[in-house]
Amino acid sequence: MKALVYHGPGKKAWEEKAKPTIRESTDAVVKILKTTICGTDLHIMKGDLATVQPGTTIGHEGVGIIEELGAAVSNFKKGDHVLISCITSCGKCENCKKAMYSHCDRGGWILGNLIDGTQAEYVLIPYADNSLYPIPAGADEEALVMLSDILPTGFECGVLKGNVQPGDTLAIVGAGPIGMAALLTSQFFAPSEIIVIDLDDNRLKVAKTFGATHTINSADGKARDKVMKLTNGRGVDTAIEAVGIPATFELCASIVTAGGHLANIGVHGKSVTLHMETLWSQNITITTRLVDTETTPMLFKNVQSGKLDPKQLITHRFKLDEIMEAYDTFGNAAEEKALKVILTS
Amino acid sequence: MKALVYHGPGKKAWEEKAKPTIRESTDAVVKILKTTICGTDLHIMKGDLATVQPGTTIGHEGVGIIEELGAAVSNFKKGDHVLISCITSCGKCENCKKAMYSHCDRGGWILGNLIDGTQAEYVLIPYADNSLYPIPAGADEEALVMLSDILPTGFECGVLKGNVQPGDTLAIVGAGPIGMAALLTSQFFAPSEIIVIDLDDNRLKVAKTFGATHTINSADGKARDKVMKLTNGRGVDTAIEAVGIPATFELCASIVTAGGHLANIGVHGKSVTLHMETLWSQNITITTRLVDTETTPMLFKNVQSGKLDPKQLITHRFKLDEIMEAYDTFGNAAEEKALKVILTS
Amino acid sequence: MKALVYHGPGKKAWEEKAKPTIRESTDAVVKILKTTICGTDLHIMKGDLATVQPGTTIGHEGVGIIEELGAAVSNFKKGDHVLISCITSCGKCENCKKAMYSHCDRGGWILGNLIDGTQAEYVLIPYADNSLYPIPAGADEEALVMLSDILPTGFECGVLKGNVQPGDTLAIVGAGPIGMAALLTSQFFAPSEIIVIDLDDNRLKVAKTFGATHTINSADGKARDKVMKLTNGRGVDTAIEAVGIPATFELCASIVTAGGHLANIGVHGKSVTLHMETLWSQNITITTRLVDTETTPMLFKNVQSGKLDPKQLITHRFKLDEIMEAYDTFGNAAEEKALKVILTS
Amino acid sequence: MKALVYHGPGKKAWEEKAKPTIRESTDAVVKILKTTICGTDLHIMKGDLATVQPGTTIGHEGVGIIEELGAAVSNFKKGDHVLISCITSCGKCENCKKAMYSHCDRGGWILGNLIDGTQAEYVLIPYADNSLYPIPAGADEEALVMLSDILPTGFECGVLKGNVQPGDTLAIVGAGPIGMAALLTSQFFAPSEIIVIDLDDNRLKVAKTFGATHTINSADGKARDKVMKLTNGRGVDTAIEAVGIPATFELCASIVTAGGHLANIGVHGKSVTLHMETLWSQNITITTRLVDTETTPMLFKNVQSGKLDPKQLITHRFKLDEIMEAYDTFGNAAEEKALKVILTS
Repeated sequence: MKALVYHGPGKKAWEEKAKPTIRESTDAVVKILKTTICGTDLHIMKGDLATVQPGTTIGHEGVGIIEELGAAVSNFKKGDHVLISCITSCGKCENCKKAMYSHCDRGGWILGNLIDGTQAEYVLIPYADNSLYPIPAGADEEALVMLSDILPTGFECGVLKGNVQPGDTLAIVGAGPIGMAALLTSQFFAPSEIIVIDLDDNRLKVAKTFGATHTINSADGKARDKVMKLTNGRGVDTAIEAVGIPATFELCASIVTAGGHLANIGVHGKSVTLHMETLWSQNITITTRLVDTETTPMLFKNVQSGKLDPKQLITHRFKLDEIMEAYDTFGNAAEEKALKVILTS
Repeated sequence: MKALVYHGPGKKAWEEKAKPTIRESTDAVVKILKTTICGTDLHIMKGDLATVQPGTTIGHEGVGIIEELGAAVSNFKKGDHVLISCITSCGKCENCKKAMYSHCDRGGWILGNLIDGTQAEYVLIPYADNSLYPIPAGADEEALVMLSDILPTGFECGVLKGNVQPGDTLAIVGAGPIGMAALLTSQFFAPSEIIVIDLDDNRLKVAKTFGATHTINSADGKARDKVMKLTNGRGVDTAIEAVGIPATFELCASIVTAGGHLANIGVHGKSVTLHMETLWSQNITITTRLVDTETTPMLFKNVQSGKLDPKQLITHRFKLDEIMEAYDTFGNAAEEKALKVILTS
Repeated sequence: MKALVYHGPGKKAWEEKAKPTIRESTDAVVKILKTTICGTDLHIMKGDLATVQPGTTIGHEGVGIIEELGAAVSNFKKGDHVLISCITSCGKCENCKKAMYSHCDRGGWILGNLIDGTQAEYVLIPYADNSLYPIPAGADEEALVMLSDILPTGFECGVLKGNVQPGDTLAIVGAGPIGMAALLTSQFFAPSEIIVIDLDDNRLKVAKTFGATHTINSADGKARDKVMKLTNGRGVDTAIEAVGIPATFELCASIVTAGGHLANIGVHGKSVTLHMETLWSQNITITTRLVDTETTPMLFKNVQSGKLDPKQLITHRFKLDEIMEAYDTFGNAAEEKALKVILTS
Repeated sequence: MKALVYHGPGKKAWEEKAKPTIRESTDAVVKILKTTICGTDLHIMKGDLATVQPGTTIGHEGVGIIEELGAAVSNFKKGDHVLISCITSCGKCENCKKAMYSHCDRGGWILGNLIDGTQAEYVLIPYADNSLYPIPAGADEEALVMLSDILPTGFECGVLKGNVQPGDTLAIVGAGPIGMAALLTSQFFAPSEIIVIDLDDNRLKVAKTFGATHTINSADGKARDKVMKLTNGRGVDTAIEAVGIPATFELCASIVTAGGHLANIGVHGKSVTLHMETLWSQNITITTRLVDTETTPMLFKNVQSGKLDPKQLITHRFKLDEIMEAYDTFGNAAEEKALKVILTS
């Protein structure tokens, strides 16, 4: 089969690789129907993630068909269409029993990281019963690819951890795919005001069509002042960090009102400065989270019922074997006005 | 001034009464701009509420202008437009400190019950700082009348107590004004399916326009079967009781799935039968609540931001001195297709 | 091997039966070291539980040694000492993922009910990875038998669902093993007052030594009056029902203060009357729950750390092959002053 | 009357000052019976708090007798014994209605900060109905002084925000009065292990008698390693910061397990470094809080019921007019083995 293989910083190839086969009775082999590229995949390609070994197939999102099943898998049968979770969960360790699947003793985020991933014609999924979701006939599978990672990530790490409530004022810093996923799913809780902050005017324009009530281009370094002005000096109930650098984290910390929440989604590479000399008395809550995908079934229901339209996030479509070109497009997102690219086998 | 006075079962009059004056330093006198009639007022008129003495002015909803203020009131000044809460709160007893204002030691639901109410040209509001809300210039005051009672009641007693969550299946039994308020505000939490059940086809038709995904006319006694069919035999995550009779309560208890919630809003006059022989193992939660109006400021924000349109509930409009006619219309709601009637001074 | 087999109402025997063997790769066979008899087992023997077929081995509590393992079991190895949960959990259905293991699609309470149970020399445990807990060397296994059912039941269904908080006033109605388990574990949350109500003076005396601050013998029908007197007319924050008959449930409903909780643990055979005509406005929460045993690992930790001493509940000890005599003792609990009997192989 | 007045950095005097009188109808004048000195008072004396003007009477803790009352105060009468909260609350602003009294628009922490405080013979208490608590006859008033600030601070900011749960492993960094208050009140939630970390062996010895299961002297810079060893490399569920410097905050952040909580109590003067490059994926929650004293009534109940013994914290006693000497003792806490000093009028 063909797979997108990482060969060290700056090197990747769409190349022939052995088709995976069942090794444990809880495994499944899934034929990929659709997959996508995540911002994290770009970081991997730059060599930013030391855990990813050269030779690894990249990708942790997708939908597919069950090709082969281990004997202990009971939730699925051959031929079933399935949604692949970016998080692998054994369902029986201490953390899985707390629904903190991201920290599963035997799984967590391993796909396209510690084991071969989904940017391939076939993928092996360990603990299939707990790491795949059934797709009913007639569902829009392109939309569902957004549920492998970005929608649960935006919702769990941003919206739920940020405790977004009806009537709240919310700021989302970063209008890439994850920030947009937080923007879409924050509206499940009816905040009054949603301020989206980014450097890219095109993304801010898109954010408005996705439900932002206000947008701020932070290029002039005055984002804090503008948020304070919009909120009559009060600040926001919740600030969601969806970038992953010190400046955006510190911006979030500077705009949260007393009693408010700062929910971090961004993947950080450096430490940040936390101004405890002012924050100690402000009754604020700062959270971090790696997505657990525990809300995937709920998100699935709200896609089926029409409350959530993830296809809005898809800007480009390719064939699976055009994946090198898709990387170019996604890697040049601002110019290409790209959010999510879909690859179809 | 003129006031609508209860004179015992079946007797009421729009008659002259002394204009109220400040007695305690925490009082306000409010000139009524708009008020409405509640289903509870009809019960009072029938003599169902033993607490209401003949001679009492009825009504517990409305907006108005501050006419006079006690010396200790600091949140308002003369001339301010205010929303009147149906719940009076002293802000300093044990229950008020828990935000359970409905059980305030010195207040609770007393307006148009234990003391003179809002269906009058002027009303005295005790503990004005905690029992009134400011209305900014330009707000739609007709819409805000719905925030005195029915919207916080539907939201707090039905939606919040019922723990409505994104993706849930919800049933609302009773499509009167309170059930409709629950229907509108339940959508703050993005349930996937909302099934509304009533005997009146017109109200069910309206419910569809307010966001119900399914409606059931329960006249044939088969509502439970239909809910089970719609939910593939699973039942609903939350059932909201918005009628107040044994049959509807027991219907709710029969359609809640394992782990689900039954949130009672209805004002009951009789005991109900609770089938503990089946429910004991079903991990369900049954709640009752008299509205605390603690969410009024949030509802206010979501009206201002356009997330909630309470004017949809208003079907009829009268002058305040046409209140006897308004009672006739509201008392004949099914035939008149009435939900809420607005009275303007 | 020998097993205690139910042969229809009133008939049981300690008799020879085939030793179980692995059938599914997720099974374990456990050699019983210690087991006990539950009040539910007495109900089964009377024929009260229609689900239990004649020929079934009874019992759902115990500790043992792994004798044999299916290939897919990875949390345990042969020879490990294990605690058996009364609830079997597949770990991969919708309810298991919500930690509502009691309603597992493939499990729930099946041991000694739908499949052979633990009052035997060996027992087959399906889904062993999710239905057994490891016991470290040196742990007091007699104490741990109390964690199979009664301690998580008292804690989850009574204390957690009843939302017991520091400073609260709590009433527990019923001082049998389950009520006592609620009494012991309620003290994890430091309530100020714990009132225990029962008909048996000996049990009330024991309750005092377990931490009750007040006890009431309800034989005179004046329990409600006494609770109201003890609480200055306010009632209790939480009432835990640990009997399972209408009179005790209705007593609980009559003593809960506004804003309080009624947590049902009792297994009911009849419907109860719920006085909604007074309760509708009282902001109360009524809960039911079949134990999920999700707190077993936590209870385990607090036994190990000495915060909880479950051995206090053990009043009688027998050899496993004296089980017919043990049933006689436990069946005559009041006279024998029995709480829990331990059977050792 | 006499009062302890701050006269700029390093300067204070016990001197004559005008006795306060009622200015607003919601005020009370309280005659001080007992007061104490807080670590924050030492900071004030050093000039660390820019908000405190020279000429201010210091102190924000105490019990006393109502000497005089404004006309609108209704919870108290002249001669009542009262507990003074360190937080003044108007009971009618947006933050008070959310029980975030620390951020009351008209109050918050103002006593001995923005207005004259309790280290005096008399003190004026604004919004007396919401800022004082009644003391019943016979209560131990010395014990209750600990409820003005340190016990609610340790409990709310440390234990509640830190989400301490039964069975948890907890670390408390800092064994001064506030850390000790967290240690005592954390036991309301039955954690399995409580590790207390400090530089002072005497305080660690005292911590053991207050319920610590392990203590670590961090003088050797190896506290993190020792915590990891004690927890088998897992870290703690909750770390409570009760010092207020970067080193202790960063120690807390380095020992919290995935999914855990870092609850800050310390008053910080500098920013800290937050290692988001490792924490982003650790599902942790960091909180800050200025005490709201919303739990004071609960703490009061648990003192009355004997579940909490705050007198353990009192190490030294003085007459009120020996306050200069008391400051010397408290200012030299390590050598004097001082926790809390009590001053009696």
